[in-house]
Amino acid sequence: MNGPSSLAARRIGIDTYRENVAYLRRDCPVVRAEGFQALAKVQVAANGHSIVAVVNVVDDAALLGECELGLSEEAFAQLGVVEGAAVAIAHAEPPASMPALRGKIGGERLGRDELAAIVRDIAARRYSKMELAAFLVATSQFELDRDEVLHLTAAMVAAGRRFDWREHPVVDKHCIGGIPGNRTSMLVVPIVAAHGMLIPKTSSRAITSPAGTADTMAVLAEVELPFERMREIVRAHRGCLAWGGRAALSPADDVLISVSRPLALDSPGQMVASILSKKIAAGSTHLVLDIPLGPTAKVRHSDDAQRLKKLFKYVAHHLGVTLDVVITDGRQPVGRGIGPVLEARDVLAVLHNDPDAPNDLRTKALRLAGRVLEFDPDVRGGEGFAIARDILDSGRALAKFDAIVEAQGRKPFNRAAPPLAPLVFEVLAADDGVVAAIDNQRLARIARLAGAPKVAGAGVDLLHKVGATVARGAPLYRIHAASRAELDFARRVAEVASGYTIGAAATAADPLPDF
Amino acid sequence: MNGPSSLAARRIGIDTYRENVAYLRRDCPVVRAEGFQALAKVQVAANGHSIVAVVNVVDDAALLGECELGLSEEAFAQLGVVEGAAVAIAHAEPPASMPALRGKIGGERLGRDELAAIVRDIAARRYSKMELAAFLVATSQFELDRDEVLHLTAAMVAAGRRFDWREHPVVDKHCIGGIPGNRTSMLVVPIVAAHGMLIPKTSSRAITSPAGTADTMAVLAEVELPFERMREIVRAHRGCLAWGGRAALSPADDVLISVSRPLALDSPGQMVASILSKKIAAGSTHLVLDIPLGPTAKVRHSDDAQRLKKLFKYVAHHLGVTLDVVITDGRQPVGRGIGPVLEARDVLAVLHNDPDAPNDLRTKALRLAGRVLEFDPDVRGGEGFAIARDILDSGRALAKFDAIVEAQGRKPFNRAAPPLAPLVFEVLAADDGVVAAIDNQRLARIARLAGAPKVAGAGVDLLHKVGATVARGAPLYRIHAASRAELDFARRVAEVASGYTIGAAATAADPLPDF
Repeated sequence: MNGPSSLAARRIGIDTYRENVAYLRRDCPVVRAEGFQALAKVQVAANGHSIVAVVNVVDDAALLGECELGLSEEAFAQLGVVEGAAVAIAHAEPPASMPALRGKIGGERLGRDELAAIVRDIAARRYSKMELAAFLVATSQFELDRDEVLHLTAAMVAAGRRFDWREHPVVDKHCIGGIPGNRTSMLVVPIVAAHGMLIPKTSSRAITSPAGTADTMAVLAEVELPFERMREIVRAHRGCLAWGGRAALSPADDVLISVSRPLALDSPGQMVASILSKKIAAGSTHLVLDIPLGPTAKVRHSDDAQRLKKLFKYVAHHLGVTLDVVITDGRQPVGRGIGPVLEARDVLAVLHNDPDAPNDLRTKALRLAGRVLEFDPDVRGGEGFAIARDILDSGRALAKFDAIVEAQGRKPFNRAAPPLAPLVFEVLAADDGVVAAIDNQRLARIARLAGAPKVAGAGVDLLHKVGATVARGAPLYRIHAASRAELDFARRVAEVASGYTIGAAATAADPLPDF
Repeated sequence: MNGPSSLAARRIGIDTYRENVAYLRRDCPVVRAEGFQALAKVQVAANGHSIVAVVNVVDDAALLGECELGLSEEAFAQLGVVEGAAVAIAHAEPPASMPALRGKIGGERLGRDELAAIVRDIAARRYSKMELAAFLVATSQFELDRDEVLHLTAAMVAAGRRFDWREHPVVDKHCIGGIPGNRTSMLVVPIVAAHGMLIPKTSSRAITSPAGTADTMAVLAEVELPFERMREIVRAHRGCLAWGGRAALSPADDVLISVSRPLALDSPGQMVASILSKKIAAGSTHLVLDIPLGPTAKVRHSDDAQRLKKLFKYVAHHLGVTLDVVITDGRQPVGRGIGPVLEARDVLAVLHNDPDAPNDLRTKALRLAGRVLEFDPDVRGGEGFAIARDILDSGRALAKFDAIVEAQGRKPFNRAAPPLAPLVFEVLAADDGVVAAIDNQRLARIARLAGAPKVAGAGVDLLHKVGATVARGAPLYRIHAASRAELDFARRVAEVASGYTIGAAATAADPLPDF
């Protein structure tokens, strides 16, 4: 590093997401002397703290004084100084783990220490977005062996804080995603908590899907709770259904996701490390993992599902987590509604044991809850499903759900008249026949275009599922939107391809074999 | 794409290098309606032009009006609007070539059309820095086969303009780089031009090295010439030695370099595509390529050099370029000086036939010039070296060099007293013995820390080369710097490791076998 030079800190009201940006005037004497250029990485230090930032060069005197160093919102917060404080700036050394990254790019196998060094640098935000993308691509697909995934996961746990609930077992369930409507957590958590097991599940918001559990739960209750409040609710009620975004359980994973999502990179090794590191950091000792399998799911071939299951089990075993992997039917959305309000309606119908509640959602939730209950040493293998069903049928799951909603902060919701977005378009069957397949990705896209999850009442309401007999011209699903423009976006895409395959009765899909 | 929304364009004086940034107020109604987020990609359109930019969200009303769309310097220039003009903004569709990129990340082989689509998107700046890094990593090392490199090169040529000199042959020479002091172009161009062949070479500035040809030439003449002026000089004098940065010969390569340099990615396929696409775009029909081989050069093993040579020849052949590859001794710097003024001094000593001119620089330049001259159908194979030597010894090369300097715009330079940076530190031999090796990368780093190329007179002056006998305490090289701080940075690194290996006489390296 060259010698540091001092400038006055200034907070610049620009949100650059998870990349720190330092704004420097081109004619600043320090810039000229040190030769900082756009996109160069600099180390900014004050009061013993230091951060690494990427330089944007400012030519406009109105934006920044000559001897000021501007910092984007997050960078300013991370450095923790007051405006006008003297900050030192110097060329940043490349992150210490760059040789390891370059080795991986060159196809080498990385050891425990090398992966730990990379993850430490990522968690400390020493990697640029370009370096993060390079790491993700170099470790994607078939590029990590199972020990590398293990070391990566362990390093991601070590880079953050780890929660200790001081009891055993601490259970959780998780789905790898990709199936619209699949809101089983809102059923599994109250069932398991009603049984008395500790299930401190945190929920996520949708990033690329039409709704996450946190989005759907937000229709019924407050979900943005301080971490301490979440802990109190878990201790009092054995579970909660709040947004986990504030817990910062796996800081390296949070940074990596900021790049893997825009790049739509989703490789087995990264998926395993991301999911297990967060569960371990959250203090879970036992986990049921749901891997949906289907032609439009994330996992599309049985071989891939088995390989992914083995990888999850290998890493979990070596990190001391008891893992039960369930491969489920991912050939169509689960439940009827796709979108926060529609999914909340479905979940409540199951909890209330409505006769017309979506049976696939109910059965899947009972199956997963049953597997979680079997982690209880007092529950015999094979008995979980029946116990879960008893808890649901008896109304104890609903009572537990209500208690959790009350604790988080209830919002008014009339399930007889759910607040659906008012504009409606019905997509009709083009032929007589049997619904042979429903494209998860297509339906998710249509629901998003209609406004979900931003517009809670928007989305898609499926009127028929796989196996149903439909007549030409009969409505297949209803699109709900809050604005004409959104309804039209969704409608146009649905008119190009509805996402439904209608076949002769004989072509309807067979039930998925049980794994 | 969602429906476009209109905002007033505003130029924001921030230089974000080759990434377009769009600044949007968080409370702008369009932002809220469309849900634009930090790092989202948007399409900005006006007057039939459109660009793709990454969103930075602005919270500060002083930076940007509520209904304004700020654009970084380059983005504003690319869109070509006046301030206040109405611009439409919409979510950008992912680049059309994303499926091809994801295929490559997944290990697939790409075809001609897929690589062409990727390169078109890159040249049009539709890739984010993350996507560029993903492409570079996915195509690095052993990931591209020779036909993929061929298609990539052809696509890079097609993405830019191609110059036609309307004569044949049009010759060039190029070195893949990595060897400090290696200023052969400043000798090869005047020798070849004096012979009458057209050599419209453009020169580059140092990016990671202590001097490029353009930096060294800038000590003696103007090098930042408009493209039209360069063409006039080439037509009048058959060659020139000006900076080629304004020619924009391979726009996709310019974009890729903005990411590959910071990541220090340098793979054979990308090197071939980058070099050959620029030469073909510049109108060259015949090229001599210098691949230095040595333990601290870019290419470190003879096998790698041969493989790289074959790849260059395969691609050049299929794109109609006559290529002569010369594998040269890359075990130490070429010449004595490292840094613009020091290297200019060495070049002038060779041109003036000074008895103490560095012989390795002279011999290498004659060898390369000879190979270029043999592209002349009137020159027999094996005669080029002697013809080049005659041109140099007779003073005709110097006369041609002087004419080129005059045409570009001469700067005063007293070669009896070159303007070296005044502060000097001598690095001494730690042992008696023979210089067995000189580390190219170490010496380049020391010269850069001393201030080269920014401080033209700074750098390193080698007093002994490989094979020389030295006594303990004798000076090995001199560091020149303009400031105490820079001298100290360079000195400290040299004191940790001088870059010289001193051995017993018997351990001195053998001459490199001729390839």
